[in-house]
Amino acid sequence: MASDIEIARAAKLRPIADVAAGIGLAPADLDPYGHHIAKLATTSGAARGKLILVTAINPTPAGEGKTTTTIGLGDALNHIGRSAVIALREPSLGPVFGRKGGATGGGQSQVLPMDRINLHFTGDFHAITAAHNLLAALIDNALHFRLPTATGLPLDARHIQWRRVMDMNDRALRQIAVGMGPGNAPAREAGFDITVASEVMAILCLADDFDDLRLRLARIRIGRDEAGTPVTAGDIGATGAMMALLIDAIRPNLVQTIAGSAAFVHGGPFANIAHGCNSVVATRAALAHADFAVTEAGFGADLGAEKFCDIKCRSSGLRPAVAVLVATVRALKYHGGAPLATLAAEHPAALDAGLASLTRHIENLRLFGIPVVVAINEFSSDTAAEHAAVLSHCRETLGVAAHICRHWSQGAAGAADLAHSVAALADADTADFCLLYPDAMPLADKLRTVAQQIYRAADISLSPAAARQLRQFTDQGFGGLPVCIAKTPYSFTADEHVKGTATGFILPIREARLSAGAGFVVALAGDINTMPGLPRVPAALGMDVDAEGNITGLD
Amino acid sequence: MASDIEIARAAKLRPIADVAAGIGLAPADLDPYGHHIAKLATTSGAARGKLILVTAINPTPAGEGKTTTTIGLGDALNHIGRSAVIALREPSLGPVFGRKGGATGGGQSQVLPMDRINLHFTGDFHAITAAHNLLAALIDNALHFRLPTATGLPLDARHIQWRRVMDMNDRALRQIAVGMGPGNAPAREAGFDITVASEVMAILCLADDFDDLRLRLARIRIGRDEAGTPVTAGDIGATGAMMALLIDAIRPNLVQTIAGSAAFVHGGPFANIAHGCNSVVATRAALAHADFAVTEAGFGADLGAEKFCDIKCRSSGLRPAVAVLVATVRALKYHGGAPLATLAAEHPAALDAGLASLTRHIENLRLFGIPVVVAINEFSSDTAAEHAAVLSHCRETLGVAAHICRHWSQGAAGAADLAHSVAALADADTADFCLLYPDAMPLADKLRTVAQQIYRAADISLSPAAARQLRQFTDQGFGGLPVCIAKTPYSFTADEHVKGTATGFILPIREARLSAGAGFVVALAGDINTMPGLPRVPAALGMDVDAEGNITGLD
Repeated sequence: MASDIEIARAAKLRPIADVAAGIGLAPADLDPYGHHIAKLATTSGAARGKLILVTAINPTPAGEGKTTTTIGLGDALNHIGRSAVIALREPSLGPVFGRKGGATGGGQSQVLPMDRINLHFTGDFHAITAAHNLLAALIDNALHFRLPTATGLPLDARHIQWRRVMDMNDRALRQIAVGMGPGNAPAREAGFDITVASEVMAILCLADDFDDLRLRLARIRIGRDEAGTPVTAGDIGATGAMMALLIDAIRPNLVQTIAGSAAFVHGGPFANIAHGCNSVVATRAALAHADFAVTEAGFGADLGAEKFCDIKCRSSGLRPAVAVLVATVRALKYHGGAPLATLAAEHPAALDAGLASLTRHIENLRLFGIPVVVAINEFSSDTAAEHAAVLSHCRETLGVAAHICRHWSQGAAGAADLAHSVAALADADTADFCLLYPDAMPLADKLRTVAQQIYRAADISLSPAAARQLRQFTDQGFGGLPVCIAKTPYSFTADEHVKGTATGFILPIREARLSAGAGFVVALAGDINTMPGLPRVPAALGMDVDAEGNITGLD
Repeated sequence: MASDIEIARAAKLRPIADVAAGIGLAPADLDPYGHHIAKLATTSGAARGKLILVTAINPTPAGEGKTTTTIGLGDALNHIGRSAVIALREPSLGPVFGRKGGATGGGQSQVLPMDRINLHFTGDFHAITAAHNLLAALIDNALHFRLPTATGLPLDARHIQWRRVMDMNDRALRQIAVGMGPGNAPAREAGFDITVASEVMAILCLADDFDDLRLRLARIRIGRDEAGTPVTAGDIGATGAMMALLIDAIRPNLVQTIAGSAAFVHGGPFANIAHGCNSVVATRAALAHADFAVTEAGFGADLGAEKFCDIKCRSSGLRPAVAVLVATVRALKYHGGAPLATLAAEHPAALDAGLASLTRHIENLRLFGIPVVVAINEFSSDTAAEHAAVLSHCRETLGVAAHICRHWSQGAAGAADLAHSVAALADADTADFCLLYPDAMPLADKLRTVAQQIYRAADISLSPAAARQLRQFTDQGFGGLPVCIAKTPYSFTADEHVKGTATGFILPIREARLSAGAGFVVALAGDINTMPGLPRVPAALGMDVDAEGNITGLD
């Protein structure tokens, strides 16, 4: 069977100007990056389409194909005669060189050119890295020279909360000491996160426009002065230079799918300590140029769709018309207790138990007033009996449309049923979107609301530090921000090993952090690793470039 | 008076496809990056032009305008009806945000779009940074898991010689401890250099082609195994993934000057611990598309032109037909002992003393068999008497052509005399290029030869460490490599405060380092800082983006 990169390479790409013309964009609207990638040079007009959110059950090692389904659904909507533009996140170099896998879909449902998109693409992540690290260099320079901040006092070296970033899996940089050696003082503990964990990434993805980007960058909290007063990026004069580094990165990137659909691939914040969605400007661009904008949120419908709604939609005013919940028979069996090695075999009891997870995610999406369609992403090991069991559960027990989807193997035609169903539901305008909590709710109550309604915890527990931090943020005027719960995506609980639909547990909040620029309060439920390590055998070791200049070993 | 960025912004840019067509490149030969920048998509043909090397007297705080003159001469050659293509280095973000100043020329002699070239450009430096740091992450991962290298033994954590890089001035990263904290072992001392100091940068700039790039990357020395055997990047399997990150970065970037001349701006290694020239592939591309390729070497004719000849020309077979030595009246007075604050005033004695420096650089260039033309880059404070003194010294005392050049204020017409002179000298084919020393000369003798013939030292002194290192490199088979002396560019001696034409001194070599991939042995004469710090008031603090999206404060 052909690998993803082989399928991608065999595809015939259209000039990006033709793809753009197909959605009403003129050459003057584009800055080309090669012949198959472009950045939008102009701001898009008003939304004319409806927003389709693709989300999934909790991720598993078996893979669900959420991005693949987002692409397949976009292709299928175009295939059935409706216009659709796709909006996706950009891949990070970390996973590309770490555990095998790009993030551009798979099979016949990929965005192209996959090798370029998975590597440097248009340089957005490099620009974000540079802007983030320029702020870090300005902070350490201010410490070195004991420069006064806007408050009149120097920064307090003991309370710097801005780390550095690199788009790489590099465990040795997680925890470091900087400023060592003569002349480089002050020495202090510091560290690197992966670029997708940068607050600049979250900011770029939530910014409405250039002016909003500037306001958000200026608000970034970097630490405190020697009297304890909070200090921001704006207070040390960093905003303008960061803006200069981000003027191209804020513009959405246009590419195409194998089927030729237009796709905006732009931004990619973590879905734990940030909100996990492509940029607001890319979603808006998709909405401006088609009947449907098909987008996705990170991780499952609990962690990802909740943040999509309560953070991205709250901030931007975007409103999804339909949600598509992606599941696979294999992943349902895994959630129902079947061991990973046995997922190719039928296991009716495990499948049945796994359907309880599916049910909960559907219930959760309905809390936001979004009508749901279930997409079962077919694997070759699936059986007719398994398909029948899942479809029957969805359609008869839950009253939700559900379809077996074969876009991975068949492309657009394989998801035509799903597309008809999604289009009909969107046309019917049944969505009655609502946020899970109002801005005015106290921060701790927001956390409790999400924990109880989405994760079905009995309650939260706040560590003394977390309780103090929430009080501080409220006192400092940030009590109206939404919350961003950073927890394992593999379980409804904070323990990744607890599968299935647990209830009655306590969700422990260890620490709270303020992302004042992005505009949310992060609550850490468990240890969240913001700088992955490479595995013993990194994917990098299997990569190369062949005699024709094609990249090999990237799948 | 208009600032450089104001002049640049007022210029009317031609579509890059038109610029390319003007030098015989078809649209299929290009990958556009926006409408005014392109990467070469194809390999250029054989050289048809002659190579003009622009170099300078020792740099001073007063500025000499070497890049400005390189651009002005290229424009002027086109202006007088000869065809010329320019080849330059890419700017680094470090100086852009540190001490005010891009690196795209000045006045009417600039390459455009200056803001894009000075910031991310086509992402080459980001790609080099990523490839460098991927190797670093693979090294620390190999240490963490104690993976066997190709020698069968694990790496020795005490002898890792590969640091990390960032395209930023960040003194806090010069000397750091990595791998701290539980689970991140082993902890060890490490550090960051600025990206222009990366051996990957030097490699990319010396590589003949893609295959040569691969061979050079594989040869990078990263440390030793636990038995003391040297270990390379190839030995830990890093080459292929580094290649994947560099497939676009190795292709030259095409831009235009204000006058519309074509310029390849590509690569930019340090001129102390590396050779300080744009890429070989860019120089070759320039030679393939015009009668003249006008290029430059870093720092002055001592440090820069010597490396251009003994490293770049030796490795590539490139041969300069003419050298242009750039000087200013102000800088000559400074070298002759006039204080910086008085340079606007006449000072005949200082000017006369400064001409001795000019003489020495001309003598040095003649050692390589290259005929020389002197370009006096006019400043508004220059007087007619000063011009007459310099021209008379060059023409009558030294027998070299010399011209007052006004390309900064007047553009191409201002350097027409220089262009006629250079073209005539190149047409006369008087160059008899020779290297300063043969490959077979022992490493210490190579150092002595450069020290005595170029710097006019009585001898070198080798520290015990340096002597041992040179013996080791020779024993390991690297005795045939050229040497790269890393020293201050501000003096012929190793002490930056010694101005003028010192003789009889001893050049102390403190340490030797092997750049096995780039293909030279670095000899450190004095402390060389490979990670600059930001000044007390960094240029970044004055930068911003205006309402039209134009970058301000970048000059």
